[in-house]
Amino acid sequence: MTADRSTGAHDSDRSTTVLKLGGSLITEKDRAETVDEGALGAAAEAVADHGGRLAVVHGGGSFGHPYAEAAGISSTVGSHDVPAVMAVHEAMKRLNAAVLAALHDRDVPALPVHPFSAAARDADGALTYPLDAVATMLDEGFTPVLHGDGVVHAGEGVSVLSGDELVARLGTGLDADRIGLCSTVPGVLDEEGEVIPVVSSFADVADAVGASESTDVTGGMAGKVRSLLAVEATAFVFGPAELSAFLAGEDVGTRIE
Amino acid sequence: MTADRSTGAHDSDRSTTVLKLGGSLITEKDRAETVDEGALGAAAEAVADHGGRLAVVHGGGSFGHPYAEAAGISSTVGSHDVPAVMAVHEAMKRLNAAVLAALHDRDVPALPVHPFSAAARDADGALTYPLDAVATMLDEGFTPVLHGDGVVHAGEGVSVLSGDELVARLGTGLDADRIGLCSTVPGVLDEEGEVIPVVSSFADVADAVGASESTDVTGGMAGKVRSLLAVEATAFVFGPAELSAFLAGEDVGTRIE
Repeated sequence: MTADRSTGAHDSDRSTTVLKLGGSLITEKDRAETVDEGALGAAAEAVADHGGRLAVVHGGGSFGHPYAEAAGISSTVGSHDVPAVMAVHEAMKRLNAAVLAALHDRDVPALPVHPFSAAARDADGALTYPLDAVATMLDEGFTPVLHGDGVVHAGEGVSVLSGDELVARLGTGLDADRIGLCSTVPGVLDEEGEVIPVVSSFADVADAVGASESTDVTGGMAGKVRSLLAVEATAFVFGPAELSAFLAGEDVGTRIE
Repeated sequence: MTADRSTGAHDSDRSTTVLKLGGSLITEKDRAETVDEGALGAAAEAVADHGGRLAVVHGGGSFGHPYAEAAGISSTVGSHDVPAVMAVHEAMKRLNAAVLAALHDRDVPALPVHPFSAAARDADGALTYPLDAVATMLDEGFTPVLHGDGVVHAGEGVSVLSGDELVARLGTGLDADRIGLCSTVPGVLDEEGEVIPVVSSFADVADAVGASESTDVTGGMAGKVRSLLAVEATAFVFGPAELSAFLAGEDVGTRIE
């Protein structure tokens, strides 16, 4: 496949979309380093049909989380143990290669971007992530594919940079119009398990999602909602059945604004 | 191995060294994707003995150049052909993994840095390469290991970012004190094949090195001399026998200032 700057949606329509494919969607979360080929293939197919100006981020699932837990690292706690942090980074690069292969099989001009090579946190944990490479890839008609990763962290060694944090950074840094979080759940759920159609403030969902913060090394639904509320772009949280509709510009799942 | 911020030369001595290991040194240039394990091991041993604040860059040798030539890309001419540019990037990541393994075997707290994930060229070919990750790795006691790579290039797709260009960028961006280019030649050679001890301007060596510009996809000795003259730090061009002496702070090979 060849990136083509002269045709396609990215020239006639400069709007930028950031899409996250959840780690729980594209991997089998209970089997170490196992890709869910069916789910990944379906997602790649939807991306191939879209063809616009799109940055993709994927989570870690059964590739990232077990190694991060073994290393004892999170977005706030790091490690200087090189084999432990290399295990996280290398596993995420293996998953990234699988995602790229699925996209290349469907002629998406996808290029890998490893955030560990570019990002850093200061001693307060604040993230600096320059997006020169990502933005120029989009301008050239490529589809950059980023992933949750390690990140060097002042005073901590290497900590975790989650896919959700990357989505927020890309949303702001690329001046994105729409953000999509595609995972195994159909949206942000209320206490009865129903999809909440619109979330405008964290208070709207605090009772329903507050408890999920501790269930995931990179923050559960509460963290997703908080970070998406802080971004200018309109964000949607939805399941795989809605991916094509989201990419076509429709409102799906939960709208966070 | 564990990066240790509390001890070691990088705390008592904040001076920064940038070391390039030439592709022709660490690979067998005439055999596709073949590491010269003896030369790489000896270089890794010297780096392990040093222990200071050091950023390493390696060239492509038989991993990078054949793919770059096949893709028809150079530092000024790019390509939008995804498989062709992926072949360059993936081969360079394989060589980077071999370099990291040699360093890890000797307890160097080395971390991989893939420039393709961070750098970009504008339409004039000017390089932007933010060094937040590299600088924070050094501050945390790690040894970042970069490599010649692809780089997304406005209007061109993906072009080549050579190890020599990276060395110049790191020298300036990290405010380095010393730069070393360790390759298979013992220095910049005059027309009789003797090492020129000191080079202060391109005119000193134009007759001797002028012709080499066209022999290498990433620029030969002429390009190295030009880029090193533009950097504040004192640079040395030397062969593998001088690597330990260079890291110990001695003047070796050709001094470029």
